[in-house]
Amino acid sequence: MSARNILLLSSSRVHGYEYLEYAQKDINNLFRKNNVSKVLFIPYALKDHDKYLATVESVLSKWGYDVQGIHKGDPKTLVEHAEAIFIGGGNTFVLLKALYDHGLVELIRHRVLHEGIPYLGSSAGTNVATKSIATTNDMPIVYPPSFEGLQLVPFNINPHYIDHDPTSKHKGETREERILQYQELSHAGIVIGLREGCTLLIEGNSMILKGLSRSRLFIPGKSPEEIEVDTDLSYLL
Amino acid sequence: MSARNILLLSSSRVHGYEYLEYAQKDINNLFRKNNVSKVLFIPYALKDHDKYLATVESVLSKWGYDVQGIHKGDPKTLVEHAEAIFIGGGNTFVLLKALYDHGLVELIRHRVLHEGIPYLGSSAGTNVATKSIATTNDMPIVYPPSFEGLQLVPFNINPHYIDHDPTSKHKGETREERILQYQELSHAGIVIGLREGCTLLIEGNSMILKGLSRSRLFIPGKSPEEIEVDTDLSYLL
Repeated sequence: MSARNILLLSSSRVHGYEYLEYAQKDINNLFRKNNVSKVLFIPYALKDHDKYLATVESVLSKWGYDVQGIHKGDPKTLVEHAEAIFIGGGNTFVLLKALYDHGLVELIRHRVLHEGIPYLGSSAGTNVATKSIATTNDMPIVYPPSFEGLQLVPFNINPHYIDHDPTSKHKGETREERILQYQELSHAGIVIGLREGCTLLIEGNSMILKGLSRSRLFIPGKSPEEIEVDTDLSYLL
Repeated sequence: MSARNILLLSSSRVHGYEYLEYAQKDINNLFRKNNVSKVLFIPYALKDHDKYLATVESVLSKWGYDVQGIHKGDPKTLVEHAEAIFIGGGNTFVLLKALYDHGLVELIRHRVLHEGIPYLGSSAGTNVATKSIATTNDMPIVYPPSFEGLQLVPFNINPHYIDHDPTSKHKGETREERILQYQELSHAGIVIGLREGCTLLIEGNSMILKGLSRSRLFIPGKSPEEIEVDTDLSYLL
């Protein structure tokens, strides 16, 4: 698995920044190190693929990349020839179902893990990159054939992780409670709660927490733990 | 379907009230009208069934009901002989999978829709009572064989519905945005966002919004609409 070049974003939008802007430097590093000039964008998580492509293109083209939408051609062929892949956010169930329906799960996994093409994921695109979508925040509005993700990393991520507001009168489960409920199950493993503005950079067998904010690490059987930006998390791989 | 006697709660806990207390009068009406003395409680949505049963028993026994836990005997036999069923909250995916695994989905549907035994649901127990679990807030921590619910009502419910806080800097989708994303899909239908303290009482072909708070109605192709307590919603059945 030493070929990995992966950047996983909690979110594409962060308060006070333009779309993807907070991660611009890390995205450029990821792509430039790997001589990427053209990015294959996968917009399946939102309904209007053309509109979504236009949003992404307007940003990445300014940064010097050509952007191609996977819905504009044969999905498998485009993945086979992609220099880099970006999967954007939206609904995780819709996204994962589309990846299975188009027969892309094994193919993307192979290209990223064994051929080392850069993978950029945001929000739902981060959820599907992990072990499974078990810790998505999204509603199950379609039924995918499995909850197993691309398994580019061996743990789960909760993007848009948010702390409980102690002044709230709302009685629904907090994000932390939901993650701990998951970890009561025998098949559950590690979960990283990525607050907005958090990113994970995985290069080969190294993983570093990057971005603007601490994240929260949930290891089954241990108390949740705060992780500072720039922490080496390679031991979780 | 004129046999229905159903009370669906957004939540069992509401700020300022004890467990189930805010709905005590409506729960008593539901059970007493139907001469219920013994309630079959289904605790599948949480991991510790005995503890969950003890919580429910401590309240309902004070109100004069015997409570039986479905995990204490043969689930099908207990449903076949139940005077009334209460399904409590927790994780909706865990709950629905257990209902399918124990072969209870058709059986509960039959007993409620055709034999008229009272059904009380709260939170996850409300989600599974509807068309599908598409509008649950819970994480998909286990994979059920289907997202189809008991279909005691022909629409979806979002329990613990919460309004967007306009001062929030969080960029994750709001609850309303998630519901509207669902309704972009051709198979989606009506969704009722039940704020905490909202309940729906369904008797035969009549449905009334009850409880402490307004709810929010989402009809595909229309703007979301506020519904006052005591509104007759029978037209949605």
